Amino acid sequence: MVEITRRAAFAGAALSMAAAPVTKAFAFAPQAATQAPGFYRYKVGDIEMTTVNDGVSAMPIEDGFVRNVPKAEVNAFLESTFRAPNIYSGPYNPVLINNGRQLALVDTGTGEGALKSSNGLNGRLLMNLAAAGIDPASIDLVILSHYHGDHMNGLIRADNSIAFPNAEILVPEVEHKFWMDDGEMSRAATPRVEATFKNARRVMTADVRKRVRTYAWGQELMSGVTATATPGHTPGHTSHVVSSGNKTLYLQAVVTHAPFLFARNPGWHFMLDVDPVAAEATRRNVYDMLAAERMMVQGFHYPFPAVGHVEKTATGYREDIVQWSPVL
Amino acid sequence: MVEITRRAAFAGAALSMAAAPVTKAFAFAPQAATQAPGFYRYKVGDIEMTTVNDGVSAMPIEDGFVRNVPKAEVNAFLESTFRAPNIYSGPYNPVLINNGRQLALVDTGTGEGALKSSNGLNGRLLMNLAAAGIDPASIDLVILSHYHGDHMNGLIRADNSIAFPNAEILVPEVEHKFWMDDGEMSRAATPRVEATFKNARRVMTADVRKRVRTYAWGQELMSGVTATATPGHTPGHTSHVVSSGNKTLYLQAVVTHAPFLFARNPGWHFMLDVDPVAAEATRRNVYDMLAAERMMVQGFHYPFPAVGHVEKTATGYREDIVQWSPVL
Repeated sequence: MVEITRRAAFAGAALSMAAAPVTKAFAFAPQAATQAPGFYRYKVGDIEMTTVNDGVSAMPIEDGFVRNVPKAEVNAFLESTFRAPNIYSGPYNPVLINNGRQLALVDTGTGEGALKSSNGLNGRLLMNLAAAGIDPASIDLVILSHYHGDHMNGLIRADNSIAFPNAEILVPEVEHKFWMDDGEMSRAATPRVEATFKNARRVMTADVRKRVRTYAWGQELMSGVTATATPGHTPGHTSHVVSSGNKTLYLQAVVTHAPFLFARNPGWHFMLDVDPVAAEATRRNVYDMLAAERMMVQGFHYPFPAVGHVEKTATGYREDIVQWSPVL
Repeated sequence: MVEITRRAAFAGAALSMAAAPVTKAFAFAPQAATQAPGFYRYKVGDIEMTTVNDGVSAMPIEDGFVRNVPKAEVNAFLESTFRAPNIYSGPYNPVLINNGRQLALVDTGTGEGALKSSNGLNGRLLMNLAAAGIDPASIDLVILSHYHGDHMNGLIRADNSIAFPNAEILVPEVEHKFWMDDGEMSRAATPRVEATFKNARRVMTADVRKRVRTYAWGQELMSGVTATATPGHTPGHTSHVVSSGNKTLYLQAVVTHAPFLFARNPGWHFMLDVDPVAAEATRRNVYDMLAAERMMVQGFHYPFPAVGHVEKTATGYREDIVQWSPVL
């Protein structure tokens, strides 16, 4: 009130109601400089979902970031979505599924070790699980969609110990076979793909391996959660359909990477797509279905809380993130 | 793992890696059934903003909810935005401004008393302030945009005591004069408007009144925060421009009510607009400016975290809520 009072004194503006100035010392709360916890709950029928944010990336946008689109065009599009250019801030969003009998975590984020290397931008899953009141030891199942580091690195802690000590680890059969095959590794098309093979071996410690079970496309992994084939981004990339009562959610993993780029431009080929042509075909098939069915969809790289719907536009698809609700 | 193991046993699907079944009892975490805290922080230059959610409404949609549009059309539009019809779930979002010297709260929500009457849907401000680590006694200024109950009722607690005991209460001069004028009250056009006059008198307890200062349009209320005239929704309805460095935020209060209805359809006249024609003119002026300048905007009835941008479309304006960030 310092400014308004002084200004009023000189300008003669009305100070209408108080007979005398309030003579308190201002309490002065400091700026907090920290964000709210990154989790969000919602229901799919009787199933309780909890998006648990692992943070965001900060990847430089260079030619090749989108294989078939020049850097300048990617930047211009990012700016059209009110985002800063040059640095790609892609969200990471693992999700908990609690069907009342089992608690599953789908994908595990960039791992505790990334918290330091990213300066706190990502590797935040365990912090946000704690904020959500979830003990990692209470997780019954970890379900992986595919073997990129931002999905599997969180299986182990910074000290390489297992992060979810009581969980079985369910992995797509096709994906596991591909990335753990030394012959495939010897034929890796690029250093980036070779690094993914090596990273998978790093994360698959003896402790992890003894908890791993492979699953097939079409298989029900827990009551209400079924695996479905969405290859392209990686050979065994898998999505999951969550159903309860008359409600259905499509957990799309990386059918599109960030939807504000790749759903809006389904023909754009992301640099991390192992088979970008197959990825685009999968993307168009799934997104035509999602739009036609008006089905709720959650995406690992969707903006937190990472759940919404998509509508078809003249040039692609547009995501519409759900309205945050204070109650379930 | 019960399902997959049994299924695998009968179907012969591969259980590739584990030599022996894991023989633990599942930990079984119960469903939590509660939402994450409703606050969100971001920066405007050196100023720290904190959206503090007060909840949502649950208003029946009837003819007259939008004065110049039939109920069926409103419901169809809501469904096109992937929202349920018939019950309008409009968010309430007060906001804190901390410029490093003073902490202000802009608008106060439906009040602690509403927590019970709404079954927890709204009246959540004090809970969410606590979650954000803010003591109500540390708030230096309360700034009101206008005198509708969802903006001013939170000035007092459920027991009618003052909610922010150390704050001066800054109110728009035109707004205060209108709603506190008994002659204006005697000419109230509808029972709903008359109820607003009466509610303002209920909330303006002696304790509140002795803390009130009126402010004029164009006045700087604290360093970096200036009041600006946006009449129509109410006669003295006021917005606030927050500036620091080269950053600007337009705090639009209710220039549009829920943007997913009234920014997308700027010609729609909301039932609570005191002068809907003036409100529409203000809305088109402000939104043309926001779209042209690509200015960040926060709205009281925007979906939490209630801050974003707007772009002009063929038929109106479309809001684009910011991407949630784990760091400030």
